[in-house]
Amino acid sequence: MADARQYFDLPSPFKMKRGGELRGARLAYETWGTPNAARDNAVLILTGLSPSAHAARNPTDDSPGWWEDLVGPGKAIDTDRWFVICANSLGSCKGSSGPASINPATGEPWRLEFPELSLEDVGNAGFELVCGLGIERLATLIGCSMGGMSALGCLAHHPGFARAHVSVCTAPRAQPFAIAIRSLQREAIRLDPNWNEGRYDDEHYPETGMNIARKLGVITYRSALEWSGRFGRIRLDPDARDDEPFGAEFEIESYLNAHARRFTRSFDPNCYLYLSRASDWFDLAEYGGAPDPATAVRNALAKMKLERALVIGVETDILFPLEQQQQLAEDLRATGTDTRFVGLDSPQGHDAFLVDTGRFGAAIGQFMASL
Amino acid sequence: MADARQYFDLPSPFKMKRGGELRGARLAYETWGTPNAARDNAVLILTGLSPSAHAARNPTDDSPGWWEDLVGPGKAIDTDRWFVICANSLGSCKGSSGPASINPATGEPWRLEFPELSLEDVGNAGFELVCGLGIERLATLIGCSMGGMSALGCLAHHPGFARAHVSVCTAPRAQPFAIAIRSLQREAIRLDPNWNEGRYDDEHYPETGMNIARKLGVITYRSALEWSGRFGRIRLDPDARDDEPFGAEFEIESYLNAHARRFTRSFDPNCYLYLSRASDWFDLAEYGGAPDPATAVRNALAKMKLERALVIGVETDILFPLEQQQQLAEDLRATGTDTRFVGLDSPQGHDAFLVDTGRFGAAIGQFMASL
Repeated sequence: MADARQYFDLPSPFKMKRGGELRGARLAYETWGTPNAARDNAVLILTGLSPSAHAARNPTDDSPGWWEDLVGPGKAIDTDRWFVICANSLGSCKGSSGPASINPATGEPWRLEFPELSLEDVGNAGFELVCGLGIERLATLIGCSMGGMSALGCLAHHPGFARAHVSVCTAPRAQPFAIAIRSLQREAIRLDPNWNEGRYDDEHYPETGMNIARKLGVITYRSALEWSGRFGRIRLDPDARDDEPFGAEFEIESYLNAHARRFTRSFDPNCYLYLSRASDWFDLAEYGGAPDPATAVRNALAKMKLERALVIGVETDILFPLEQQQQLAEDLRATGTDTRFVGLDSPQGHDAFLVDTGRFGAAIGQFMASL
Repeated sequence: MADARQYFDLPSPFKMKRGGELRGARLAYETWGTPNAARDNAVLILTGLSPSAHAARNPTDDSPGWWEDLVGPGKAIDTDRWFVICANSLGSCKGSSGPASINPATGEPWRLEFPELSLEDVGNAGFELVCGLGIERLATLIGCSMGGMSALGCLAHHPGFARAHVSVCTAPRAQPFAIAIRSLQREAIRLDPNWNEGRYDDEHYPETGMNIARKLGVITYRSALEWSGRFGRIRLDPDARDDEPFGAEFEIESYLNAHARRFTRSFDPNCYLYLSRASDWFDLAEYGGAPDPATAVRNALAKMKLERALVIGVETDILFPLEQQQQLAEDLRATGTDTRFVGLDSPQGHDAFLVDTGRFGAAIGQFMASL
């Protein structure tokens, strides 16, 4: 299948928030639609931890994208009207520079020599990309999950960069439950002897650690409610079971196995560690200049100069609980941004934004049409 | 410290639900209070996955027990009135026969040669213990978490064995979210090369697998709400951090580390696997003789001939969601058992029954006093 990725060379050096800089770094991105004459119809999508820039099919790459149902002509994010850009996060492994890419200074993969990555760096790289495309101000900055934090980080560094913001299933600062989950995912990878402090190869690959990390991800991305209805206590066909002691017996276990199998070799473990830790670090309160985090978050939001915002969350999300989006919406409103809040009762938990595209499409489509 | 454990020799052979039998097996147990002349004041407590029989201090062992605040003279489970028995589960490693104990036939630890264990076996062993103590009928059978399922299994096999039942944070059948969590815990142990299909020793011990399993346990036993209030985003003192790449930085991570450190060497990994799998297998619907699980559960409860019941659950419990206890209470009521339901808003999640002893003590104390 043809590859629709384009590459943008980041300014060199590109300064990292926590110190250090990148030289010769780049971002992979894809676009849909066309910039208008005023160049004021651009929409940037910042992704969750693992997706690539391929949010939807386009003439070059006809394979369905990770937000296929929402991005396209006549869809919620209507590419007949908007010039849509989706970037693979800095630090990821889907074409952008990160721990798995080659360090131009050494000709070797960066691995753990890649500088400490923050979500502000991810957001800043997105900002540079948009500027590089000749766009001064976004019509809308959309961020999903981790990308929602990257978006807030971007806006904290570049106030006024977006007229509108769509914040999907995210949080202005990581809370301890989510930190605990991500920390355990990282630990599973780190404790795999094949991780070897980041120096693995295809033959000696931290498959076990990635398997556990991914399954824990899937468990916390979904919800008990959905699984009770979908899997109940359905058993595997005895012929389909492996003979391992304590091996899988229930459908839900085989579902987790299938998810993990698809992921472990398709996402780089070091990139996973970097992006996961960056999510824990993110705290919008750092930009608010007040000792009380709640006040600081509000102050930080006030500086972003957003005209309009849509904040969406899901009742069954245990990783980014709905209260966080509710609070974010209230805070945006309090700072003068015309804000719409949508709390959905989708059963699919955090993953609902990828799965319950009917409800998400309706909410986002309505908002985008109102701009 | 002196040991208050007593040992009860199970009938030999002791038949296991899923096939096979145990010879020369025993249960460790402790007691508080005294049987009355009619021997109708006995209360049996069946525990969660990891506790020992030491529910509370007693004259022989003055160390605090795992339900110290609830069991004792004048407490919710008043040992001035009740003769209280707590058994270490069959299959556990705190004195009862299980994968870590010696197989009398070989003189070697059972390890994976221990027969497949079900929670009905755990319940049946409790039944034999009580009978062995010369008690025909319990005043109350109390089961917490896994022990609540063992209690239902016991009553399914021995209708009329208890006049009253206290069901704490449990479920009549394991649901896929809980199965997924437990399956992943088992997998973390199984994937640890030191597990070696159950043939580990102190030098080659599946510490890594147990560490991950325990942390995942702690994460799902607690709640996001409690942790947000308790840990927020508090950082570790830089001096207290380890130098490992991606090592702990937040208080929540060090809390998980401390929990895992206390557990990994104090609970036998094979016993953990057996009890964990038994929890997944448990399904009260097996005893209901109806194709629809909801009807079958109700039928099974009807046969238990319980006069009174108290069902308690916690709103923040993600492992055994409150709806399961609510349904259990409704089903008991529908089958003619005089049932009290208490849904608590304790912030501590599933662990609340061990921690929020104020609320649990009040609910259980009131019920026990009313008997």
